[in-house]
Amino acid sequence: MRIDRKRLETSIEELGAIGATPRGGLTRLALSDEDRRGRDWMVARMREAGLRISIDRMGNIFGERAGTEPLPPVMMGSHADSVPTGGKYDGQLGVLCALEAIRSLNDHAVRTRHPVTLVIFTNEEGARFQPAMIASGVMAGKIALEDAYNARDKDGIRLVDELERIGYLGPEPCVARPIRAYLELHIEQGPFLEEEKLSVGVVEGIVAISWSRLTIHGVQDHAGPTPMRIRHDALVAAAEVVTGVRGIARDLGGDVVTTVGNLTVAPNIVNAIPGRVTLSIDMRDPRTETLDRARERLDRIVREAYEREGVRYELEHYWQVPYTPFAPEVIAAVERAATTVGARWRRIRSGAGHDAQYMAAIGPTGMIFVPSHDGRSHCEEEFTSIEDIEDGANTLFLAALELAGRA
Amino acid sequence: MRIDRKRLETSIEELGAIGATPRGGLTRLALSDEDRRGRDWMVARMREAGLRISIDRMGNIFGERAGTEPLPPVMMGSHADSVPTGGKYDGQLGVLCALEAIRSLNDHAVRTRHPVTLVIFTNEEGARFQPAMIASGVMAGKIALEDAYNARDKDGIRLVDELERIGYLGPEPCVARPIRAYLELHIEQGPFLEEEKLSVGVVEGIVAISWSRLTIHGVQDHAGPTPMRIRHDALVAAAEVVTGVRGIARDLGGDVVTTVGNLTVAPNIVNAIPGRVTLSIDMRDPRTETLDRARERLDRIVREAYEREGVRYELEHYWQVPYTPFAPEVIAAVERAATTVGARWRRIRSGAGHDAQYMAAIGPTGMIFVPSHDGRSHCEEEFTSIEDIEDGANTLFLAALELAGRA
Repeated sequence: MRIDRKRLETSIEELGAIGATPRGGLTRLALSDEDRRGRDWMVARMREAGLRISIDRMGNIFGERAGTEPLPPVMMGSHADSVPTGGKYDGQLGVLCALEAIRSLNDHAVRTRHPVTLVIFTNEEGARFQPAMIASGVMAGKIALEDAYNARDKDGIRLVDELERIGYLGPEPCVARPIRAYLELHIEQGPFLEEEKLSVGVVEGIVAISWSRLTIHGVQDHAGPTPMRIRHDALVAAAEVVTGVRGIARDLGGDVVTTVGNLTVAPNIVNAIPGRVTLSIDMRDPRTETLDRARERLDRIVREAYEREGVRYELEHYWQVPYTPFAPEVIAAVERAATTVGARWRRIRSGAGHDAQYMAAIGPTGMIFVPSHDGRSHCEEEFTSIEDIEDGANTLFLAALELAGRA
Repeated sequence: MRIDRKRLETSIEELGAIGATPRGGLTRLALSDEDRRGRDWMVARMREAGLRISIDRMGNIFGERAGTEPLPPVMMGSHADSVPTGGKYDGQLGVLCALEAIRSLNDHAVRTRHPVTLVIFTNEEGARFQPAMIASGVMAGKIALEDAYNARDKDGIRLVDELERIGYLGPEPCVARPIRAYLELHIEQGPFLEEEKLSVGVVEGIVAISWSRLTIHGVQDHAGPTPMRIRHDALVAAAEVVTGVRGIARDLGGDVVTTVGNLTVAPNIVNAIPGRVTLSIDMRDPRTETLDRARERLDRIVREAYEREGVRYELEHYWQVPYTPFAPEVIAAVERAATTVGARWRRIRSGAGHDAQYMAAIGPTGMIFVPSHDGRSHCEEEFTSIEDIEDGANTLFLAALELAGRA
């Protein structure tokens, strides 16, 4: 039994057209009008596949295919939101391969002992509302519903108000419930599978992640008549921090990655010395303790920049997740499925956070990666070949079937 | 004869209330609704003072007090627009001291041989539309009217459309006409007068200014799974440039000042490696040739950052003005006035560009500075004491009277 590659390809094109950018990418920010249209399209396809739809208080969408016994479901899914000018594969591919797996169960009239449930998580990216993976975080009890509701986008709009506006503020409690397993297919977003000419990565865990936020208060002044000797330039201090953050990865070596992705200057005009800069620091490593050392270095870099430029600052280490190992029985099921499919596979670690990270706190969890061309994602150039997607989708299909148990 | 300090103080408060910020500053961007209200207030006061109002095609406002002979006017004025969260003195003070000088001529029923004309220039700051001093630039024939009309703000709105919207697209040609002299009172925006406990600066010229724009194209990618070895981070390259621009001032020494005031990151989210950064470089020095050397250094800094990080870039040196010396006869008249007033004064150079810079190409020009507390401007904390303002306003009044010639 295999999935229908042609049908899957059509789905990728159709959902990918909602929020498509002129240069082949996707902008479908969480709870935007594009997200609503994407959700509506998915719900229509899930109904066609005979699934029982429910929506919870975080706007997570569930579509259940009944099992033959009163057992907890095998869940499969991902998210359908994107970053701004992102790609057509990140998130969307996991949702569509899960849909395709269920359609394939229908095609072959296969009954399973456990129900099989497709899930679409709200606001995984964290591009519009922070933190990322907010809805699976609430489900796992790691984020309070109240806090998630009050998350605001850059225009000050609350998450809960947008959930209501687009019609996806559901009635079901957003809480952990028993699951047989959670499976998520996703693009690798790194270069390794492609470099090694593999089609599938069997994910054994997700790296530890640390997010920090730095606000630097300098003294806003006129860029002309203010002599260098009396300046306290927030951006000069920020530039030292950006350079220093790059240096943390170089000095610690190994797999650690460090990024300043967000940096905002005020008042941000040509002829004013910057009075305030806010910036983000994202650091990741397979070993949680490496990030403890990275944060110590960050503290020192910021302190030194502050002393040199005579600015004030606030540094918050506001979000940390430890290394998340996946369940050995799920990893083993994915390996067997990949082998049966004939995929070229190896074990791999995820450098990106995924809803699977929180789902691992609820029940046995695993992930399947497919290659990212040039290792690129969160950009319009994101691409995975349909051949590799087919291997991944079949791996998901067979692993889910094994875990759900043929009736 | 002296100006009326109490009346001037009231004017500063009243005009300063239009666009006032909660923390005592001012946001009155060029051609905004606040700018319109500020202009309307000024025009009403100018009519009360008996001035003949005219408005030109760049929205510059003129108010003429007739002379006894058919001679070119002594012009006095400045601008009424502000930077975002700027102060209540920059620009506004020059316009109000000129108004007060004319009111004082009326009080004392003084007739002058030359007309005395108050002028309010459009969009001096360059905070909303670039370049700065756009309207005096058109008047001096240095900027084409067409180009000025097509200048766009960050939302893509054209200057000419905003001029029309707020009702200040006037019928008079915006061209150079003979003037007896141009006088502009302005805050120093630097620390020197206050440090030396002086109340008035007799400005002998304006430093040379060079503006450049740099766009860095990196490779946008996911901040997690992208190993450091394959990154091309536009912000890491930009940080080196910011540090390098600070270093230009340190290395060249003397009076040169260098600033990166504007820096914008795309996509600007926590978990994406920045794909594109644009930033501004503002460099100033009394010697035009120092800026030639500074631009050579900038070229090298950008090239090195580009090579190290493997990014592409475009660097444009898009605006340069040479050192502008003021007219010896106007400087001498201002010195005599300051001495008569009893002001504590010295000669000084302006580190900031002013409309006087373009007016110097039209006719004999001079400026009067009053101190800036802590040298600060372009910020809400901008402050000049009423005692110092009074000395400056009286200096303006007497210098204008001397140049206009008592009838």
